[in-house]
Amino acid sequence: MTTLKQTLSSIRPVDQSKAPAIQAHLDDLTKPQGSLGRLEEIALRYSLITGAAVPRLGKSRVYCFAGDHGVADEGVSAFPKEVTPQMVFNMLAGGAAVNVFTRHVGAELRVVDMGVDAEFADSPGLLKHKVARGTANLAKGPAMTIAQTTQALETGIALAEQAAAEGVTLLGTGDMGIANTTPATALFAAYLGLKPVDITGRGTGVDDTRLKHKIAVIETGLAVNKAALSDPLATLAALGGFEIAGIAGLILGAAARHVPVVVDGFISSAGALAAMKLQPAVADYVFFSHLSNEQGHRAVMGALNIKPILDLGMRLGEGTGGALAMSLIGAAVKMSAEMATFSSAHVSEKAE
Amino acid sequence: MTTLKQTLSSIRPVDQSKAPAIQAHLDDLTKPQGSLGRLEEIALRYSLITGAAVPRLGKSRVYCFAGDHGVADEGVSAFPKEVTPQMVFNMLAGGAAVNVFTRHVGAELRVVDMGVDAEFADSPGLLKHKVARGTANLAKGPAMTIAQTTQALETGIALAEQAAAEGVTLLGTGDMGIANTTPATALFAAYLGLKPVDITGRGTGVDDTRLKHKIAVIETGLAVNKAALSDPLATLAALGGFEIAGIAGLILGAAARHVPVVVDGFISSAGALAAMKLQPAVADYVFFSHLSNEQGHRAVMGALNIKPILDLGMRLGEGTGGALAMSLIGAAVKMSAEMATFSSAHVSEKAE
Repeated sequence: MTTLKQTLSSIRPVDQSKAPAIQAHLDDLTKPQGSLGRLEEIALRYSLITGAAVPRLGKSRVYCFAGDHGVADEGVSAFPKEVTPQMVFNMLAGGAAVNVFTRHVGAELRVVDMGVDAEFADSPGLLKHKVARGTANLAKGPAMTIAQTTQALETGIALAEQAAAEGVTLLGTGDMGIANTTPATALFAAYLGLKPVDITGRGTGVDDTRLKHKIAVIETGLAVNKAALSDPLATLAALGGFEIAGIAGLILGAAARHVPVVVDGFISSAGALAAMKLQPAVADYVFFSHLSNEQGHRAVMGALNIKPILDLGMRLGEGTGGALAMSLIGAAVKMSAEMATFSSAHVSEKAE
Repeated sequence: MTTLKQTLSSIRPVDQSKAPAIQAHLDDLTKPQGSLGRLEEIALRYSLITGAAVPRLGKSRVYCFAGDHGVADEGVSAFPKEVTPQMVFNMLAGGAAVNVFTRHVGAELRVVDMGVDAEFADSPGLLKHKVARGTANLAKGPAMTIAQTTQALETGIALAEQAAAEGVTLLGTGDMGIANTTPATALFAAYLGLKPVDITGRGTGVDDTRLKHKIAVIETGLAVNKAALSDPLATLAALGGFEIAGIAGLILGAAARHVPVVVDGFISSAGALAAMKLQPAVADYVFFSHLSNEQGHRAVMGALNIKPILDLGMRLGEGTGGALAMSLIGAAVKMSAEMATFSSAHVSEKAE
């Protein structure tokens, strides 16, 4: 059995039978029951994922997966393709937003070359897992082969396994890839049956003319790849990207190792959706960090019945929203682990 | 001139003429313009408050003001009054939620006895500024005298000044006081013309019967104090509390010293509103941290045309929401201070 198949078959839903004991602990902390709202829900889910009634927070780490896209040739992005490697260098030098935010929340950052259309010298902080120098153009056929897609997924799985072995207890996803809102939107349309016209946005900032063109390109991509769209893996291959498959793999690997994983925004959600289509039980292991300002994310989250933790009008990617949400998840875990209980603190309980 | 009057007269709106230069800096950072959404807005406001185009993040500190309320005698809370001093002890021992969250975000915490109905021994971390052992019952007359209110306000002002002198660049407010959603709701009703029935909530968790009673108590309080409600200071005296006035004072003092201040939830918003009624220009210096799950906060924020940073269904107070938002404000400030620019990082700009 391949690594991918083994991983998919090893993922189980969390054990909900542990929920009442965890909830009883949360209710015994010195606060009115439920008064910390979503943080209590996050703490409960984190405990269910890790299996520890009183959870422990180890290292946090964001993997930012980078890749280029053949569909960029269609002129769907406001930025030129060379920005993908330029931003990889910016991340390696510590100057990108995701560097600032991961440092701020005390998380590690790893940059992964999954398929950037440039060659990189060895560099500390850069993980070289290039599948190819950019995907094929999804508007003309499958973006990736099944073998390439499997390779990208298994890279993500291996990174999650390594992180778990190194003491990481909270993983985050991120992306860098010029034009990648196009494959992400195509995946949302294919997996969820949403219409491209309803969910296609401006990405890094295209104008009205290019937006119309982008919608047409996505519709073309869905049409030319129609035969692939009945199978989750073939859909990911046809419409996805190396970084999106890497994200999906990281999420699958995290779920297999019982490590909670924070999903960044629009692109990462496409990776998460692919992972959930490959193995629905991964949903239990995933925290959606923020509602992206990218048109369509609200509809996607609605279709999945998910309310992300943050809503800050962000649309940068890289793992920026995931990093910020890590701070809140960390607060929730510490709430559960560090707060006094009513009895230990000699605080009177509710009178009614 | 008294300290209060001096402070009120020294507060000026921020200098909006500096906004274009600050915005130009934010737009030069390596991200599509506006792609960090509210974080960019926060960074802009923080810079305008401090007057530095590239802002600096020093120490952060939350002041949790504690006080008791005569109106607790009306049976408006689900918890007994002795919980106020018990929770003060819990905070001094490090076991309350606000302890966990301030530690988590790297902020200092100071607990201030503004008017708890108990005597405290000296304790490190406890600031003793008791005005009286609890307010009078607002349902029977003014909760505080004007002199008491001024004293509480000036305590908050002095604490903000001391914090600024000690290198604090981000202040947070918090509260502890059994029954204090009742005075806060009464203040919202009086200052904003909102109806108690629309904005009165369950606080720490009263049942339907007590909720109706609580609304009636607030309506009575508004009626018996009617003569005071045309003046902002007299309104605060009639319906407020020592901790609410302390919060208002901290906000005024922060604005006078050009220190940004993060307002926690329902109770702190009442303090912020009192400060804004005393001196409308303080609004420029205030960040509203989160939308409280306490019924009425949404209406209050709507009336003030404010969208808080977080919406996590929290309703605990103490400064918990403010502490969590400090992490996001810190991220915004560091974004502005630490990110590379397009030119410095050799990243190509938008093609269009």
